[in-house]
Amino acid sequence: MTQTREEFEARLRRIGEERYHDKHPFHHLLHGGRCTPDQVRAWVINRYYYQSRIPMKDAAFMSRVEDPKLRRAWRSRIEDHDGTAENEGGIARWLKLAEAVGLDPDYVASGVGILPATKFAVDAYVRFVRDKTLLEAVASSLTELFAPKIHAERIEGLLANYDFADDVSMSYFRKRLSEAPKDVAFGLAWVLDHADTREKQDAAAAALTFKTDVLWAQLDALYSAYVEPARIPPGGWVPGEGMALARAS
Amino acid sequence: MTQTREEFEARLRRIGEERYHDKHPFHHLLHGGRCTPDQVRAWVINRYYYQSRIPMKDAAFMSRVEDPKLRRAWRSRIEDHDGTAENEGGIARWLKLAEAVGLDPDYVASGVGILPATKFAVDAYVRFVRDKTLLEAVASSLTELFAPKIHAERIEGLLANYDFADDVSMSYFRKRLSEAPKDVAFGLAWVLDHADTREKQDAAAAALTFKTDVLWAQLDALYSAYVEPARIPPGGWVPGEGMALARAS
Repeated sequence: MTQTREEFEARLRRIGEERYHDKHPFHHLLHGGRCTPDQVRAWVINRYYYQSRIPMKDAAFMSRVEDPKLRRAWRSRIEDHDGTAENEGGIARWLKLAEAVGLDPDYVASGVGILPATKFAVDAYVRFVRDKTLLEAVASSLTELFAPKIHAERIEGLLANYDFADDVSMSYFRKRLSEAPKDVAFGLAWVLDHADTREKQDAAAAALTFKTDVLWAQLDALYSAYVEPARIPPGGWVPGEGMALARAS
Repeated sequence: MTQTREEFEARLRRIGEERYHDKHPFHHLLHGGRCTPDQVRAWVINRYYYQSRIPMKDAAFMSRVEDPKLRRAWRSRIEDHDGTAENEGGIARWLKLAEAVGLDPDYVASGVGILPATKFAVDAYVRFVRDKTLLEAVASSLTELFAPKIHAERIEGLLANYDFADDVSMSYFRKRLSEAPKDVAFGLAWVLDHADTREKQDAAAAALTFKTDVLWAQLDALYSAYVEPARIPPGGWVPGEGMALARAS
């Protein structure tokens, strides 16, 4: 039976409560200050891949949207990540974090050293948005519902525990605190409006579940590769690689 | 043997001289003032489909671009068509032309009445950009090299010959006179820089040739359906449909 709007929204929020990656042990290590500098670097390198694919995912979505108004509303997500004349954008801000943890931002942007499992998960997300229904694509973005909490925890945890954390290196997370709620309010309303049968509600819930898997798998890959007993797979970043050189002068 | 930059650019420009749709008899009818009002309407309805798919094509391109700088440069094309806070955008301007020729803009935007052959050609273009190499995708946009001339001819020919033509209804073409050269300067430089083997030059030339086919096929379809002896296919707009109602008051 089709769920009421309220039941369906509660169901979506429950998915976050049960499966969002703020429950993952790597998140606890990180915001609790128990990550080594190299573990933080591995996180920054791998998460960059996710960041860098988000605008491609959003463009893939827009490429399938026939309604100019919906495309226009969605376009701000790409602007938030790729930047505008006034706003450097989330990708550039993430590279500032990379610099703050001692990495060469060009190395990070090159994509070398990213764990294969990170790529598989992220690429699966981009493909999902390209291939599934628009409803499923929008629903898969709704992990943003749960993001402000994790960003706030990260800012607090990183500032309290790591020397590299300051206003510049934390700027990505601070900016997302204002961007994500705007995006998710739009996305949630759209999903609630369009999931008007039980079948569509189930598909939307499955899409959001899939997305929590995409995020979780990335932290699993990090944990497996870089938390003792660390098993860095072939091709994965090896501590010491890609560090910023001490600048002359 | 790889062509020099100059030889290769000349080769691309020759494709326009030989195959661009300003050579098509429908274009001559239109800008020469020899189209009936219904033929103009059929052109406006069908060309809307092309306009409406261009931002989807550009988003499909961006969804495959890994370089944030290239995505950002390309994004302005979507803004030009879908609009921004300051700029209503090309699609909205095209609907003003639709209104000026007596059509209901909602009918035009609905996509009803578009010739199947128009859809086949335009959809082939979107698919081409989604599936081919980035070089071929950018090269296929280079028909913009030849567009300012056709827009200028259209503005002059339509203003001279049709009552509906005024500053508002011609605003789409006037705006493109400034937008297209900016886009094409970027695209041409990108193609000349990246087509660094004969094989790539051949692929880029073939992509531009393909795009001229996409444009030509649209005018062929119009000619076949609406120029005597007119053979409107099933599903094609029939004169009288989709007209704006006389407004109350």
